[in-house]
Amino acid sequence: MKTIEIREFHTPSSGIFFRAGRRLLSERTPFQKIEVYETDSYGRVLFLDGLVQTTEKDEFFYHEMLVHPAMMAHPRPENVLIIGGGDGGALREVLRYPVKSAVLVEIDGRVIEVCRRWFPGLAKSFEDPRAEITVEDGNRYIRETGRRFDVIAVDSSDPVGPSAILHQRSFFAALKRCLRPGGLIVAQAGSPLFHLDPLRKKRRFLKQLFKRALYYYGPAPTYPGGLWGYAFLSDGLDPLQTRRRRPPKKLKYYNIDVHRAAFAAPEFLKER
Amino acid sequence: MKTIEIREFHTPSSGIFFRAGRRLLSERTPFQKIEVYETDSYGRVLFLDGLVQTTEKDEFFYHEMLVHPAMMAHPRPENVLIIGGGDGGALREVLRYPVKSAVLVEIDGRVIEVCRRWFPGLAKSFEDPRAEITVEDGNRYIRETGRRFDVIAVDSSDPVGPSAILHQRSFFAALKRCLRPGGLIVAQAGSPLFHLDPLRKKRRFLKQLFKRALYYYGPAPTYPGGLWGYAFLSDGLDPLQTRRRRPPKKLKYYNIDVHRAAFAAPEFLKER
Repeated sequence: MKTIEIREFHTPSSGIFFRAGRRLLSERTPFQKIEVYETDSYGRVLFLDGLVQTTEKDEFFYHEMLVHPAMMAHPRPENVLIIGGGDGGALREVLRYPVKSAVLVEIDGRVIEVCRRWFPGLAKSFEDPRAEITVEDGNRYIRETGRRFDVIAVDSSDPVGPSAILHQRSFFAALKRCLRPGGLIVAQAGSPLFHLDPLRKKRRFLKQLFKRALYYYGPAPTYPGGLWGYAFLSDGLDPLQTRRRRPPKKLKYYNIDVHRAAFAAPEFLKER
Repeated sequence: MKTIEIREFHTPSSGIFFRAGRRLLSERTPFQKIEVYETDSYGRVLFLDGLVQTTEKDEFFYHEMLVHPAMMAHPRPENVLIIGGGDGGALREVLRYPVKSAVLVEIDGRVIEVCRRWFPGLAKSFEDPRAEITVEDGNRYIRETGRRFDVIAVDSSDPVGPSAILHQRSFFAALKRCLRPGGLIVAQAGSPLFHLDPLRKKRRFLKQLFKRALYYYGPAPTYPGGLWGYAFLSDGLDPLQTRRRRPPKKLKYYNIDVHRAAFAAPEFLKER
């Protein structure tokens, strides 16, 4: 069988490669190019516009670290909003808690359909009765909805293409208005190694918008640099004062020790 | 100018690639193949037997995390031994402390010479008057020397080729006899993602040899999986009870928060 080699550049001159037995899907939607490959080493891999979004083998690092620090920091998260997250992985993690509703707003309905077909381990979360799936521009949704949330997770792709707006100040200002009192926001924040300048710029406006705008970090083997950043945004809750309750069972990466550890800022990322 | 593409497989079907403007060196020694490339994205990169050992851009993660947790946990490290570490990076970090001597035992003298020439940012440490460089088989050295050390750092390459013995029980048993009372050992322990079985096997015998055999973790962007493991071995010292003193200045990754965080075990690595 012919082997396909796929690669993602992490810098203009370096990156990762995978050998794939099969390309399962390649299509252009109005928003982006979607590709799914069956790889030997990482299972199925989802690419959007040529960038790895999800691999079956290592997706748990990212999805657990995006969701659990917020869900554990909030004393009683009942209503949750996910912006993006069309693969279903973040939703799966949110639904491990006894929430009343989890609204997912994904701009590209084809991502949801593709993941339903090829990533059932993530997308089975769409079938949960507490899940409400909305195919819509997340930036428009948050400006129009009257609903308010305890936890909001921004599971965007990188700040190019359809997700660009999800990294801007006006988006976070509008998002804040969707919080219930005591609510909090988490957002993927890119690679501290390769996206340090945008990360710093974003931190400046997040600190103006929120009393607490903290970054935390976790491994993400197939993302650039292998280390990923997340923003934790609240006007009150301290992420390190999690109540003494247990995280959901059967997690692969997250636990309470990992939660605390994730907020330790590497020396080169400390604010001066 | 023609661009060279170099790659390292992290699994049989995936890995990283770099584009290099120039191959600066390629030679076979009695022990291994040494290559040095000038890459656009990571500066100079040292390969031993085709595996990335050191890149100028990201070496600080590994060298700081190998050395500082031990040096900070020990109340007064005066005599230090490094097994391997022929690039000089671990030695550079050790010499940031007021040690009396730092013995480095590298099996392949060519690695030292090559790094003196091409990696001055690491290998300048060889010129320090406190450094004693010995070109010898580390496994033989520790069985023959009468010297005793406060801190021993095992900066080996992977358990193939000349470093295979440095991952075995008999080596660690002999190494323990080279400790001064209250001394401790740190050793690079591979990728928790890709080398999990050998890591677990090694942990079993390390736990028999030492009262404390703990693993800790840190980012290593160009190593497989981007997350790297280290073993902390002592019969007394608790790595989390570091004295309240400051780490050396000008570190890039390590600080006291990072130190504590590194010992948080991911859920999939917890012992059952």
